[in-house]
Amino acid sequence: MAESSQLLLVLDLVGTFAFGLNGALTAVRAVRLDLVGVLTLGTMTALGGGILRDVLIQSLPPATFSDLAYLGAAAAGALVAFFLSLPLERFTVLIVVFDAIGLSVFCVTGATKALEFGLGGVQAVLLGGLTAVGGGTLRDVMLRKVPTVLVSDLYAVPALVGAGIAVGAAHLDLGPLVVAGVAAPVCFAIRMSGVVFELNVPTAPGRGSREQD
Amino acid sequence: MAESSQLLLVLDLVGTFAFGLNGALTAVRAVRLDLVGVLTLGTMTALGGGILRDVLIQSLPPATFSDLAYLGAAAAGALVAFFLSLPLERFTVLIVVFDAIGLSVFCVTGATKALEFGLGGVQAVLLGGLTAVGGGTLRDVMLRKVPTVLVSDLYAVPALVGAGIAVGAAHLDLGPLVVAGVAAPVCFAIRMSGVVFELNVPTAPGRGSREQD
Amino acid sequence: MAESSQLLLVLDLVGTFAFGLNGALTAVRAVRLDLVGVLTLGTMTALGGGILRDVLIQSLPPATFSDLAYLGAAAAGALVAFFLSLPLERFTVLIVVFDAIGLSVFCVTGATKALEFGLGGVQAVLLGGLTAVGGGTLRDVMLRKVPTVLVSDLYAVPALVGAGIAVGAAHLDLGPLVVAGVAAPVCFAIRMSGVVFELNVPTAPGRGSREQD
Repeated sequence: MAESSQLLLVLDLVGTFAFGLNGALTAVRAVRLDLVGVLTLGTMTALGGGILRDVLIQSLPPATFSDLAYLGAAAAGALVAFFLSLPLERFTVLIVVFDAIGLSVFCVTGATKALEFGLGGVQAVLLGGLTAVGGGTLRDVMLRKVPTVLVSDLYAVPALVGAGIAVGAAHLDLGPLVVAGVAAPVCFAIRMSGVVFELNVPTAPGRGSREQD
Repeated sequence: MAESSQLLLVLDLVGTFAFGLNGALTAVRAVRLDLVGVLTLGTMTALGGGILRDVLIQSLPPATFSDLAYLGAAAAGALVAFFLSLPLERFTVLIVVFDAIGLSVFCVTGATKALEFGLGGVQAVLLGGLTAVGGGTLRDVMLRKVPTVLVSDLYAVPALVGAGIAVGAAHLDLGPLVVAGVAAPVCFAIRMSGVVFELNVPTAPGRGSREQD
Repeated sequence: MAESSQLLLVLDLVGTFAFGLNGALTAVRAVRLDLVGVLTLGTMTALGGGILRDVLIQSLPPATFSDLAYLGAAAAGALVAFFLSLPLERFTVLIVVFDAIGLSVFCVTGATKALEFGLGGVQAVLLGGLTAVGGGTLRDVMLRKVPTVLVSDLYAVPALVGAGIAVGAAHLDLGPLVVAGVAAPVCFAIRMSGVVFELNVPTAPGRGSREQD
């Protein structure tokens, strides 16, 4: 159990750092915000999903506030993105990759924490998905973009699949390392396949292709 | 009391289904999202108001998560809208009607649940209003529209009136069926009158007509 | 202690009134909403930060709902702005000033309430900042503007400085009047200096000036 929560913390911090990088990078590219704006958007992206999760399972104050390592990881990610933004921006794919890392890790930690707080299996899967997509949705709303979770092919789906694997593995009493070691990579692989191969989930019958902006 | 919470649940599910339909229909028409996007926006519209209510009265985890019937009703509404979107879209008025049904039911259930959790009368009216307008506001923010509650004539007002009737009737110890049977139709009637007759509440003195988009 | 919470309440109401004025004034100018829309946006701006704070420290139902004075102060501010909007709009600076007053007061009350609920010093500073910028961020999202906290020079910084002074003074056991009397004016002075002198915090290296809208 102690081992489990250790791993949960480490994974949470990895996801927080990745989303901090992603949010800050997005901010620099989309709006060219100043240092405070970049830090703010980076930390909101990084911490938003976890805060939402903790509010809904009533784990308050949120881990973000009770353990300062979260804020540190988020800020570190945002600062790295801010100061390295010029070279990094050549690699647009990095934004997508960091987002996919955060997504993959948070769907597992969200689902696992929900189980620990006594929620049922299906609910834990949903909460894992919410944790994974929450921060990025907040980021997009703040930048006035239609949220990725609405328009992107395979964004919510891999998060729910990852959370589902995590819940299934937990029911089989597999160790936490196994749970995370399978669920997160599967989520990551599905998400990146969607990006690379531009896979689509079906649109409403009789409709042409989606109009994005 | 058991009868009351039975009725509350049924009404909540009706409102959830109606908002699921409305959110998904709005999504298909506004952005032509894919299946996952439509399901996501439909369920967010359907569940957003109730989650907000449950967080604020500390009924956690929210009913949405503890009782899967909510998710089922929301997803059912969204799926119906998705697969029937082509014929349905001819009837623009249906979007408004489903929204009005959700509004009318949620103002009652929100106010009633707030009373059950010990809030005062005025607070229960406010919370009923918040429950009713919460999901639609989330929907509009996600689609980058100025929320209906800000620009629409008679949207918050009927919700508050409906919640007020529900609270008043509860203080008079009328049965829950009477409460809902009066409050929800009154809210619905006011809302639809506003739509049909384009009734306006006054704008700031010395101003021309509102500019919407 | 009783003195402290008395002062906290008075300050909270002052901030609520100021943000109610600000939110309503912004609404009238930006979208020319009707009376209900102006009231709604005014109260959301005024109450959003405090509700966010109370959810995160689990002081539920939020003070906004348990003490109706908050709603009264918010609505009073919004109504004043609505009926005086024509003469007031000549003084654009008033919008900024009311916003700065709300910011300065809420960073202090947010941090102080967080300390009273047992949060650590750093967390209390963060929560004070969140309380201060929360309502305005909600206002901007509802009106589809990039939130001030992201694009404005010196908005989050003075809020965090004010909260930091409040937490530091509380640790030194200075009386609540001293805490508020120093922290809030310092925050206000920094914020207004930023506005008046157009001070900038640094943007990402190698970048031109920010592009706002």
